[in-house]
Amino acid sequence: MNDNPTAAVLMIGNELLAGRTQDINLKTIAERLGSIGVRVCEARIVADDSAAIVDAINTLRASYDYLFTTGGIGPTHDDITAQCVADAFGRPLLQHPQAVKLLQDYFKSRGHDANPARMRMANVPEGGTLIDNPVSVAPGFVVENVHVMAGVPKIMQAMLENVLPDLRRGSMLSSVSVQCDLGEGTISAPLEALQEKYGSSIEFGSYPGKEGVAGRLALVARGTDTEKVKEAGRDISAMIVSLGGKVIEAG
Amino acid sequence: MNDNPTAAVLMIGNELLAGRTQDINLKTIAERLGSIGVRVCEARIVADDSAAIVDAINTLRASYDYLFTTGGIGPTHDDITAQCVADAFGRPLLQHPQAVKLLQDYFKSRGHDANPARMRMANVPEGGTLIDNPVSVAPGFVVENVHVMAGVPKIMQAMLENVLPDLRRGSMLSSVSVQCDLGEGTISAPLEALQEKYGSSIEFGSYPGKEGVAGRLALVARGTDTEKVKEAGRDISAMIVSLGGKVIEAG
Repeated sequence: MNDNPTAAVLMIGNELLAGRTQDINLKTIAERLGSIGVRVCEARIVADDSAAIVDAINTLRASYDYLFTTGGIGPTHDDITAQCVADAFGRPLLQHPQAVKLLQDYFKSRGHDANPARMRMANVPEGGTLIDNPVSVAPGFVVENVHVMAGVPKIMQAMLENVLPDLRRGSMLSSVSVQCDLGEGTISAPLEALQEKYGSSIEFGSYPGKEGVAGRLALVARGTDTEKVKEAGRDISAMIVSLGGKVIEAG
Repeated sequence: MNDNPTAAVLMIGNELLAGRTQDINLKTIAERLGSIGVRVCEARIVADDSAAIVDAINTLRASYDYLFTTGGIGPTHDDITAQCVADAFGRPLLQHPQAVKLLQDYFKSRGHDANPARMRMANVPEGGTLIDNPVSVAPGFVVENVHVMAGVPKIMQAMLENVLPDLRRGSMLSSVSVQCDLGEGTISAPLEALQEKYGSSIEFGSYPGKEGVAGRLALVARGTDTEKVKEAGRDISAMIVSLGGKVIEAG
């Protein structure tokens, strides 16, 4: 588990910090990266502020194998991600010839003017390669270990799928989740004993329901050894029964 | 707007980075703080890892007027937030007498044993004050400018309401959102001109719909001067019409 590639996610946009927009990209990215054994270790959300974005990019790209950014690559004045990535790497921001061609053809086909705002979406830091956008053409891009994607979930998802095949894979993490009717205070000590029994090979977690009331506590075991995860799941179920609880659902 | 108190949010929990749990707390915190003029400037999500939590707490509490944390204050082995806050401040973690009493009474009334795991929820860094939890009693706490809350949304929301009256208020931010049928590439230059006209008193944003397709672009103006925000909204609507677009909804 600890040898798996690591990743961070940087979500860019005032709207996420103003309570206007509910982010749903982090969960998608974590699930899809998890499916190829890449572990998301940290996420940050910053405003449309150059200094904050550049600082976060440089910290995160140095700390993890991969950095994925979302947001700020559209054509409006508050879309400053490409310039910030260029600044973070100390590289010039250039019109990418392939992106220029893609966008010019696309706008022409739709009867849109290829105005300077639209053509800003062809700007990529020197040496960057494009990420295909099958939804609305304007591409994302990759600079070294930094993957720059759109914030619109449907576009982000398409870009992410296009990037996955190029990433180094890790051991697949599998998990079991056992729901029970016990409280966290009841399972705490025996669950910790299970954690000690399995050591770092399995990570045990305990998650109460959204409402914070009894009756729906999920106990989760995660790890890269599928057989061991299954065994941990059976141990969790046995623990619940031995404490007088009921297994509501397991899977 | 720039004199308003600033805040950061630190969300703690492996489940948020594993794609298991969709966070909904950030949006609530941003909305509620925004309603009293406190601006959320940054958010981070870290795993149940002491070093990562302590580091994030110390960076964020030094950078903003307030820090709000969610998660990791339950009774299980992966709930390490209280210890991490104590470590971040270099203070001992102590049983808080008032919390001990609250929890003992609560467990007694429910016929639960006040076992060591449950009583861990009375641990508070030296000098901390309690945040009342009307849902499930186990309190949050405040140490200087750091507000430690539960991760379960219903409990977090109740704790947040209990904390709001103690915060310094800023000028209320109001906003208008105008939906139109134009693309971002069409409105970009005139929207930037509006941004220049209003300067830093109004913040203009442009947000395409979730699907990334045309027909539902939201143009938003935010600021502390309500009259100026309304005027900016009227300017946005006039801009849309002058570009041959249709105002679908404004408010």
